[in-house]
Amino acid sequence: MKAVVLEGRNIRVEDRPVPEPGKEEALIQVTKAGICNTDLELVKGYMDFEGILGHEFVGRVADAPDLQWMGKRVAGEINIPCGKCRVCLGGEPKHCPSREVLGIHQKDGVFAEYVTLPLKNLHVIPDSISDSQGVFIEPLAAATAIFDYVYPGPEERVLVLGDGKLGLLAAQVLRTRSPHIFCVGHHSRKLALLDKWGIQTAHDVREWEGKFDYVIEATGNPRGVEEALRLIKPKGKVVVKSTFHGMVEMDISALVVNEIQLLGSRCGSFAQALAFLKDHPIDLEKMVDEDFPLEEALEALERAKNPEVIKVLLTPG
Amino acid sequence: MKAVVLEGRNIRVEDRPVPEPGKEEALIQVTKAGICNTDLELVKGYMDFEGILGHEFVGRVADAPDLQWMGKRVAGEINIPCGKCRVCLGGEPKHCPSREVLGIHQKDGVFAEYVTLPLKNLHVIPDSISDSQGVFIEPLAAATAIFDYVYPGPEERVLVLGDGKLGLLAAQVLRTRSPHIFCVGHHSRKLALLDKWGIQTAHDVREWEGKFDYVIEATGNPRGVEEALRLIKPKGKVVVKSTFHGMVEMDISALVVNEIQLLGSRCGSFAQALAFLKDHPIDLEKMVDEDFPLEEALEALERAKNPEVIKVLLTPG
Repeated sequence: MKAVVLEGRNIRVEDRPVPEPGKEEALIQVTKAGICNTDLELVKGYMDFEGILGHEFVGRVADAPDLQWMGKRVAGEINIPCGKCRVCLGGEPKHCPSREVLGIHQKDGVFAEYVTLPLKNLHVIPDSISDSQGVFIEPLAAATAIFDYVYPGPEERVLVLGDGKLGLLAAQVLRTRSPHIFCVGHHSRKLALLDKWGIQTAHDVREWEGKFDYVIEATGNPRGVEEALRLIKPKGKVVVKSTFHGMVEMDISALVVNEIQLLGSRCGSFAQALAFLKDHPIDLEKMVDEDFPLEEALEALERAKNPEVIKVLLTPG
Repeated sequence: MKAVVLEGRNIRVEDRPVPEPGKEEALIQVTKAGICNTDLELVKGYMDFEGILGHEFVGRVADAPDLQWMGKRVAGEINIPCGKCRVCLGGEPKHCPSREVLGIHQKDGVFAEYVTLPLKNLHVIPDSISDSQGVFIEPLAAATAIFDYVYPGPEERVLVLGDGKLGLLAAQVLRTRSPHIFCVGHHSRKLALLDKWGIQTAHDVREWEGKFDYVIEATGNPRGVEEALRLIKPKGKVVVKSTFHGMVEMDISALVVNEIQLLGSRCGSFAQALAFLKDHPIDLEKMVDEDFPLEEALEALERAKNPEVIKVLLTPG
């Protein structure tokens, strides 16, 4: 099968054997995959990952030990915990210290014709959600996970820092709670979308310093947290979403003096994201810029680096 | 009156006029003051403070517009808010953007024979609390403020990082909630005290990585947060207490991936600290190393820098 393989800092499309599903695993034929900022960071060296990239996908079950899964259209959770350790048994399997993570850590990903995943990771996608929309379930789950920390009231002001894929999803998700959602945008297409979604925008937020109850840091770069700490009001909460290769310099005393909460947030629940999507019309298709054949993954990754681009998809076969 | 004055990086004991209390303010004769790590940081340049140092004290009201305060033995809250702005009216006066802070920001402190403070900052100290104990009300309030974020159950494990003044107070306060309180200690006297208080100690915590539900970061130095992030377990909470002059380098991706909460915590409620002290026998007097006359404040500050020393007091007059 064709697969997009990262080795060191080299990435290429090559032929790989179709993976063998383990016990309690399905073999899934990938029908659509999405490029995430994390993929671009992995190529830069984040997590020292080597193998097949990709973790956002929709596919069809091609083989499974349980016949009721055969042919089902699915998306899949990306954490594969051991299921036996103290952390797993304590109810936090996504923090299992020996977990594999699809296309991110010790587990081949979905930029390929086929992928394997444990059955318990799979979620059936309803017919009302297209393949292109289904690719967003994973990042949408990450966006709805913000509600675990921050559930804004209708009077509260929220700033989303970063107008990338996750930032735009987070802004849409938060907009369902409060009319006072702000986002910093720099590109006309993104500004037009934010405007359409009823989200207030600005090029420059310096006049907003200390004015936000909550800041969602989704810049994907090391300057984001520093900027969030400047913009949040005292006793405010900053939900940090960015993962990237490298360290950040921070003014810890400002965190203490202003009693800021800096809250790390990673993956969310697919079930919650699917339920959310059923109840709220999140505009996903408008976020797709281009859909490349899997063979052209290198061009697709190059295109995804462009800051004016929101979402680039890959279609195998 | 004699006062300990910081000007640039120079500190000296000099004669200053007795301050004039404003409307709704008391003049207080300082009977005992305590040296805090923040004082040592101010001397290094933190907050660019100039003026009379000191914010931990017990004193006697020498003049007040309201006669019922006359002669009362008091401690005083250190934040002096404007009382009129959006933040004050919103119920968070200690975060008033134009607040003065006793001996820390735009307000002369207590390393002097007299100090002025608004009446609403004062708390009467009951007779059961000595002057030397009363000096600890301010840092004890900072320690009990940890409960705003973290209220450990009896099975939960808490690490206090830092065996300085605040660390030892925090460990004692948390020990009232759980028997699983740990502290890193390096000096025999401190280790003996921690042992006496039923707090588990170690020289080296590397074997405890990822094992704590909560970490209280009270090292007072830039390496503390980095160490806390290594020791906390996934989804754990780190309460950050250190303020110091300078920046910190941090691995933000680790915060996100492990969904850590980094919670800035500053001052606490004096009323809460006094109530806590009434109900729990916190060992304060054992924490005092030495009591210097105010005239010898420079020697006292020098002594307080010694990492083996816990608390140094100053006595005016």
